[in-house]
Amino acid sequence: MENVLPFKSGEETLPFSSQHALTNLQALVAYDMTQVNNHILKRMESPVALIPQLAGHLIASGGKRLRPMLTIAAAKLCGYEGTRHTKLAACVEFIHTATLLHDDVVDESGMRRGKQTANVVWGNQASVLVGDYLLSRSFELMVEDGSLKVLKILSSAAATIAEGEVLQLMMANNISTDEDSYMEVICAKTAALFSAACQVSSVVSEKSDEEELALNSYGMNLGIAFQLIDDVLDYSAKQATLGKSIGDDFREGKLTLPTILAYRRGTQDERDFWKRTMERRKQSEGDLEKALAILQTHDALSGTVDRARHYGGKAIDALTIFPKSKIRDALVAIVGFCIDRAY
Amino acid sequence: MENVLPFKSGEETLPFSSQHALTNLQALVAYDMTQVNNHILKRMESPVALIPQLAGHLIASGGKRLRPMLTIAAAKLCGYEGTRHTKLAACVEFIHTATLLHDDVVDESGMRRGKQTANVVWGNQASVLVGDYLLSRSFELMVEDGSLKVLKILSSAAATIAEGEVLQLMMANNISTDEDSYMEVICAKTAALFSAACQVSSVVSEKSDEEELALNSYGMNLGIAFQLIDDVLDYSAKQATLGKSIGDDFREGKLTLPTILAYRRGTQDERDFWKRTMERRKQSEGDLEKALAILQTHDALSGTVDRARHYGGKAIDALTIFPKSKIRDALVAIVGFCIDRAY
Repeated sequence: MENVLPFKSGEETLPFSSQHALTNLQALVAYDMTQVNNHILKRMESPVALIPQLAGHLIASGGKRLRPMLTIAAAKLCGYEGTRHTKLAACVEFIHTATLLHDDVVDESGMRRGKQTANVVWGNQASVLVGDYLLSRSFELMVEDGSLKVLKILSSAAATIAEGEVLQLMMANNISTDEDSYMEVICAKTAALFSAACQVSSVVSEKSDEEELALNSYGMNLGIAFQLIDDVLDYSAKQATLGKSIGDDFREGKLTLPTILAYRRGTQDERDFWKRTMERRKQSEGDLEKALAILQTHDALSGTVDRARHYGGKAIDALTIFPKSKIRDALVAIVGFCIDRAY
Repeated sequence: MENVLPFKSGEETLPFSSQHALTNLQALVAYDMTQVNNHILKRMESPVALIPQLAGHLIASGGKRLRPMLTIAAAKLCGYEGTRHTKLAACVEFIHTATLLHDDVVDESGMRRGKQTANVVWGNQASVLVGDYLLSRSFELMVEDGSLKVLKILSSAAATIAEGEVLQLMMANNISTDEDSYMEVICAKTAALFSAACQVSSVVSEKSDEEELALNSYGMNLGIAFQLIDDVLDYSAKQATLGKSIGDDFREGKLTLPTILAYRRGTQDERDFWKRTMERRKQSEGDLEKALAILQTHDALSGTVDRARHYGGKAIDALTIFPKSKIRDALVAIVGFCIDRAY
């Protein structure tokens, strides 16, 4: 989590150590990730041409594939030498992709990863249905694995994600949402899949309950930190380099921790500002700039990063029961990467 | 499949024998359906209040629960005496409900079963997300059953349904769609779940491949007949008594067998009419009435019922390997019910 010399690689500027953390993890899982990608390409095939077109638009659009990488890395951490983890990693990516397709419909998003979203290119209808297809495909992949324990972990994660998304929808535009309710949302909608992605690898490796819990906890805490930093990035100039526009959450009136903190720490005038812009969605020119200034005044962005560091620290501690190894170091370093994305 | 004296019961007018077929089947499965309903109510619970509200709106809205009834009846036909079938029946109803929620979003429907659709009451966003929740819940239910064979049948049906929905979306507004392509759509989007609903019961009953195939075939052919009659009903005065509006498919430019037949059997003028109204969606007052008249001229509705009868006959023949019993008679009679709905 050091924050040293910036290192320019492609479109992203990251502190050297964090950028290195990602490339290092990528190198360690590279061979298995080729198998994962093969599963993904094969399983999104369909005689119905629109399905691979639309799914491929998102899947091939240069996401980091962080979640399936976690499955692979966790399996290596457990000393697993089989091949089941690659199919489960593909399954995790399918659940994630299905969620993104439906999220973009629900949020009416126009851009993701620097490209037009699938709902803009092919319409909401196609995005809803192809999302359903990928979710169902992910279940087929799980079933092929044949472990009821794995099935339970992944199917329960999928239900939790959907529950979290509904909860988020219910609290949208309600500026008085408290921090704990918000944490409940992100545990469900984001961290549950990170957690399941790591946990299944301990199951296929037939590790003890202790290791299984440790990987569950690592994934859960890393997922929370990841989402909090995502929330910060939505208000950060850094965002533009990630191919997304700044202030999407603000424009949609989507409460995230930065605005929750700014509302609580703010003056009455500032609270009225948030009520008008986020609750009643009455926004005019200059409002985003004003929002950014208020967030700055109350250290709401750096405060959110502080919270993320707290969960990042828990994630790192969860791994200490595993013997020291290159892959453990890589999983520790990736926590830093997830947090330093904010800079 | 006799078509004798009309019999008035509640809102529905059906030939006496067909109405009797439904009440007879309902009576035979009544006890088990209570358990199914308990599973449904319990599993759509969530601390997120919107989920049971929205799901309950549809689930409690007086659908016939035909699909879960088929699971129960098929289990009885196989002489099954356990309890697994009730949870699987609930699972089938969840998959169906998730599909309906997403269908109504995709089709922009306003009414279903005589009530406003969930997307009208709570918005598209909530319908998409609660649909995802129910689909994921259905997988959790399957996993609890613990049979990998059952899991394979049901998860594969879910993927097939989604694939069929995408295929249907792709051929929407294309009036030159041929009958075989259309049959492919309805096999996937409707009949696959009927088929899986019946087949899983032979699996829990540990029946031979012969019985399993027979139940798969019964469900598939009944499902095709059911969907074809649904397509007819959309153009039939009968529709109003089912709480839906007439001509939804026409207004949406949604190709179904009646219009496919009318286009093929029609004159050049009539084909131009279908192209304008269904492909280019340029409709004005009187167009629905004109469409109904053309359908009548070419026996397109009765022709579709004829096709449905063909599949209904196959469904009935599939059951003949089972010994004669009350439940077999009821499953035969329900084929007649599904077809006589058209009158």
